[in-house]
Amino acid sequence: MTAATTRIVLAKRPHGVPTDECFRFEEVQLPTLADGQVLLRIDYLSLDPYMRGRMNAAKSYAMPTEIGDTMPGGTVATVLESRSSSVTAGEQVLSYSGWQTHAVADGATVRRLDPAAAPVQTALGVLGMPGFTAYAGLRNIGRPTAGETLVVAAATGPVGSMVGQLAQRAGARAVGIAGGPDKVEFLRAGLGFDAALDHRAPDFREQLAAAVPEGVDVYFENVGGGVFDAVFPLLNTFGRVPVCGLAANYNLTGLPTGTDRVPALLAGILTRSLTFRGFIQSEWAATQFDDFLAEVAPEVAAGRIRYREDVVDGLENAPEAFRGLLAGRNFGKLLVRPNA
Amino acid sequence: MTAATTRIVLAKRPHGVPTDECFRFEEVQLPTLADGQVLLRIDYLSLDPYMRGRMNAAKSYAMPTEIGDTMPGGTVATVLESRSSSVTAGEQVLSYSGWQTHAVADGATVRRLDPAAAPVQTALGVLGMPGFTAYAGLRNIGRPTAGETLVVAAATGPVGSMVGQLAQRAGARAVGIAGGPDKVEFLRAGLGFDAALDHRAPDFREQLAAAVPEGVDVYFENVGGGVFDAVFPLLNTFGRVPVCGLAANYNLTGLPTGTDRVPALLAGILTRSLTFRGFIQSEWAATQFDDFLAEVAPEVAAGRIRYREDVVDGLENAPEAFRGLLAGRNFGKLLVRPNA
Repeated sequence: MTAATTRIVLAKRPHGVPTDECFRFEEVQLPTLADGQVLLRIDYLSLDPYMRGRMNAAKSYAMPTEIGDTMPGGTVATVLESRSSSVTAGEQVLSYSGWQTHAVADGATVRRLDPAAAPVQTALGVLGMPGFTAYAGLRNIGRPTAGETLVVAAATGPVGSMVGQLAQRAGARAVGIAGGPDKVEFLRAGLGFDAALDHRAPDFREQLAAAVPEGVDVYFENVGGGVFDAVFPLLNTFGRVPVCGLAANYNLTGLPTGTDRVPALLAGILTRSLTFRGFIQSEWAATQFDDFLAEVAPEVAAGRIRYREDVVDGLENAPEAFRGLLAGRNFGKLLVRPNA
Repeated sequence: MTAATTRIVLAKRPHGVPTDECFRFEEVQLPTLADGQVLLRIDYLSLDPYMRGRMNAAKSYAMPTEIGDTMPGGTVATVLESRSSSVTAGEQVLSYSGWQTHAVADGATVRRLDPAAAPVQTALGVLGMPGFTAYAGLRNIGRPTAGETLVVAAATGPVGSMVGQLAQRAGARAVGIAGGPDKVEFLRAGLGFDAALDHRAPDFREQLAAAVPEGVDVYFENVGGGVFDAVFPLLNTFGRVPVCGLAANYNLTGLPTGTDRVPALLAGILTRSLTFRGFIQSEWAATQFDDFLAEVAPEVAAGRIRYREDVVDGLENAPEAFRGLLAGRNFGKLLVRPNA
């Protein structure tokens, strides 16, 4: 079988928001399968904030995506043809095939998914890298305990929603922050957060202070920006700040002018014995991902840990969906169905 | 016996550098000893950067010193008279009597010192709070390992000199930073640091980069300011920054203008998986101070861990000596002999 793929490559490095000129669509013929390879049809492409960092020339988490390379990303795919002993045609797998409709992959690099255990696309969200980011950041850094208060922003997203629900399982109070009344309502009624706040409210800072009468013990940092500024003064002595993302800052083209608040930040760290720790989930994936699935998958299957997805159809809509992600316009885990 | 003390009280909260008007000398009669109390003649008063924080109205590490209260500080004293069963007249003790010539203290709150084991004033420096600050920050946060590179500033001081020497015992390279050629020479020849740099050199940043060809794994932060700015870009992935002091910032009257580098600081923490952790030695004193003395005191006695003292005679010289400390003009652990 020969097949073609439509893919989106990095055409130009963005300055600020990634405009349409940063992306180029290509239609190319895929090579005939070599021994051990599989041909995949991409069912779901995961869009995640870290991809913005890959578009820059500077090394961030990982090496930058090169100009002309397919935009990277986790994917769930159906095996159309297999020359690998580990998977057979018709099975669904997790792969890292990026922004395209089809792909050829090594059979050894994909992970077979069981559609009976959980919807396959959860391998990109609540039971995948974002969910594990929440788990690893709390287990290794945040360590919420009974009676403590945790705050997380982008709380309807795949990381934030898991952070809040895991913190509650540890006996902590979970305060979620999101943008807009629909999301706030979902945090309260849909996910059962102890408190939920809209960071767009004019009196957000006052609302936040009122929502954490005993201060903040864990701030799970995945957005940066104004939410960080509001939470920082409320952190208690011995507060912990796992830093896994700064989505609000990713499109910054320069540093804000005004005063340099670095001395104030360091003074706060010093006088309140705070811990800041940046991390990527891959640091602990080899040693803790199995624990994560064993603990969390049954809770998800039973509906005791909940999540929300935001599915966009058509690969051609990926760039705009990605811009929306960085601006907080998605509502739940953002997925693209490239072939829909 | 009745006795008088000359003491220095906080007269006015400083705005920036603590001027002479911030201090007032008082001569007062001490009360007759009650049961359990001791009368002390202060032999050594320790001057430390943390005292600057106590002079502010805002809570920092600890409650602020009140206007009219004696300036706080650790002291080594001789017992002139004792109504306590735990110490007898003529013994030397560690107490927390502050900036004065004499004091009355509860016998239960002083610690007897053995002049045969080590010079008594080391209980205020290399074998006291500053030395333990170095030990606790490395043991609990910095954790230097063989082959790693550690950087510490104010490296001729009582914290910095211990940090470097303990890091070397763990097999790490110790790079010390100090102000002026005499101090740099002492770091190299007197303390045996692997490299020593003068932060006042016009090409300090280039010198620092050249001195850490494999980057920085531990930056023991006790000064802040320009040294922090120079070290931060050199921190390696998984770098650790124990934050125990920010002496360069203590006299700031406002935040610097220009760009707000907080987003860049957070981005560095994120992309390099850095750990920042503020601390005060008291967090671990109850559980680790005995370990510290057991490990370090024999090394000091044998001359394998070295230190330097800067002794100022006369209580009247304490305010100027304290200003010098905050400006880095002392050379070694700063002590005042109030009765000399």
